[in-house]
Amino acid sequence: MKIAVDAMGGDHAPAAIVHGAVWAARDFGITIQLVGQPDVIKTELARHNTTGLDLPIIPASQVIEMDESPVAAVKAKKDSSMVVALRLVKQQQSNAFVTAGNSGGAMAAGLFGLGRIKGVKRPALGTIFPTDSQHGYCFLLDVGANSDVRYENLYQFAFMGHYYAQHVLQIPSPRVGLLSIGEEEEKGSLLTQRVSPLLKDSHLNFVGNVEGKDIPAGLADVVVTDGFTGNVYIKGAEGVARIIQKYLEREIKSRPTALLGAILARGAIKAFRTKLDYREFGGGPLLGVNGVVIIAHGRSDPYATRHAIRVAKQAAENNVVGAIAAGLGKSKISTNGK
Amino acid sequence: MKIAVDAMGGDHAPAAIVHGAVWAARDFGITIQLVGQPDVIKTELARHNTTGLDLPIIPASQVIEMDESPVAAVKAKKDSSMVVALRLVKQQQSNAFVTAGNSGGAMAAGLFGLGRIKGVKRPALGTIFPTDSQHGYCFLLDVGANSDVRYENLYQFAFMGHYYAQHVLQIPSPRVGLLSIGEEEEKGSLLTQRVSPLLKDSHLNFVGNVEGKDIPAGLADVVVTDGFTGNVYIKGAEGVARIIQKYLEREIKSRPTALLGAILARGAIKAFRTKLDYREFGGGPLLGVNGVVIIAHGRSDPYATRHAIRVAKQAAENNVVGAIAAGLGKSKISTNGK
Repeated sequence: MKIAVDAMGGDHAPAAIVHGAVWAARDFGITIQLVGQPDVIKTELARHNTTGLDLPIIPASQVIEMDESPVAAVKAKKDSSMVVALRLVKQQQSNAFVTAGNSGGAMAAGLFGLGRIKGVKRPALGTIFPTDSQHGYCFLLDVGANSDVRYENLYQFAFMGHYYAQHVLQIPSPRVGLLSIGEEEEKGSLLTQRVSPLLKDSHLNFVGNVEGKDIPAGLADVVVTDGFTGNVYIKGAEGVARIIQKYLEREIKSRPTALLGAILARGAIKAFRTKLDYREFGGGPLLGVNGVVIIAHGRSDPYATRHAIRVAKQAAENNVVGAIAAGLGKSKISTNGK
Repeated sequence: MKIAVDAMGGDHAPAAIVHGAVWAARDFGITIQLVGQPDVIKTELARHNTTGLDLPIIPASQVIEMDESPVAAVKAKKDSSMVVALRLVKQQQSNAFVTAGNSGGAMAAGLFGLGRIKGVKRPALGTIFPTDSQHGYCFLLDVGANSDVRYENLYQFAFMGHYYAQHVLQIPSPRVGLLSIGEEEEKGSLLTQRVSPLLKDSHLNFVGNVEGKDIPAGLADVVVTDGFTGNVYIKGAEGVARIIQKYLEREIKSRPTALLGAILARGAIKAFRTKLDYREFGGGPLLGVNGVVIIAHGRSDPYATRHAIRVAKQAAENNVVGAIAAGLGKSKISTNGK
């Protein structure tokens, strides 16, 4: 098992990334290919005990910066760590790719570098979202790869989410829900009204339309939406958790006698916010491209990096790409026939 | 000042509605027309001291139930409390209409009964959303009247929200933001990309695109979006606040020593959830119809009812309808010209 890690991408790169990679190499006993500028990576590696670990450096002279225009940067920087790492995956010298860099760049590089799985019209970016269900989370997609979608894209997202939940999250029969604004099939947008009956007719465990409040309540294991709504949703959740925390801080200030308990409560909110933190909790897979691509949060620390590598390993081991390819093959008639 | 109140609509109608109406009549010194079944209303009125208050009963024999299909119910039930009350507004025998009943029904009844303000293509439902700004809230629209919109609808929503914020929320130069998935103008959906430059060119105080996390952070006083995204957003916020509260309850159970402080924290979360509660905080105006329509939460208690009546009074006194009509007249060139 070899995982190519973008050593240069992320707010705390290269230090946090290399640290997380060393940690993952030791804990999971796998090869981590550190892709980026050799001098920089060597300096970071020297800070750690790497005895017995397999951490080859793969040279890449360029870096796609966090604020660069994704598509242009990917096209211009052929020797960037992202493009070079994805070439390894494409050439089957790596089983998966992990980056905490420019997420738009990672999506573009993933799509250009690997191409789409046969039959997939659009890749989607997924993320874990904390819930009150048995599993403690659900899988939400798309959260930003596609601002505008067609019904057949949503239909495929449902399948891709289903296979990801089965193969990586180990949920045998994931409950798939369609994010909408009413539980009834006839409510919602033209888009959801069109795709809802198709999902009902599919072999997925489709539980119907779910509303915004139903996601944290855990009513579905896979929640399907367009990248605009999904992105607004997860960022909204982040903002809401933050403002509740601020309310709490004010309460603490006004009544310091309750400090101890308030600190505890702060812990609860912080725990939620950490889980919520966009892709920090496991890294978000870019599904639909022909290889494993895990996009971790830009703010990833060593722990988040290690965690994203673990998710990449699971996705590669359990062959999510193959499952999606096979599954979308099966669903083809409904996709093209209606 | 006369306000027509749907005495029959809401989960706790007629008791909570009549109670709230009595309260509002006393506190604001206005006439409240209680529309509904006279016997039922009389029984409720008898529970209160109404000496010196002006609370005429306007008979309406039918009720639009909470689970009825809105458009069909409004068309079929010509003598329902909603339809009768809106007739009063239309005939200028009332200055405004307040209901806590079936919100889809209220939107349909408002649109059919009052028609649109000249130039308005689509009415929009707005709501207050709690923020960390100076005002403590922003105004978010649309939150459910239109699942599918065109760019000119969003453009008009911005103007309607602007005038509502100015005239009812008393914010002299409200900062108007467009909900999107990136701050840059070129990010977002095809729809937001089209409307963003138009808003930039308008005379509104347009602060650009805002993301999901920016709403609670208070980056805009008026946030414009389509009814699908807006509805998913507010319901998502509700769900997130609820799950944080559940996390907290668990913490309390596991460490009862911290009970006191945790109760305090629970207060902070509860306060947020109350503010958040869809339209409870002031009632949501249906903007763009030719009259004042305030749709309160189905769960409205007497306090929420009183509050919704106060909002209706403010909207009527400050002539929001006239401001929108005049304002959209001014914006007409940009609306039609591009």
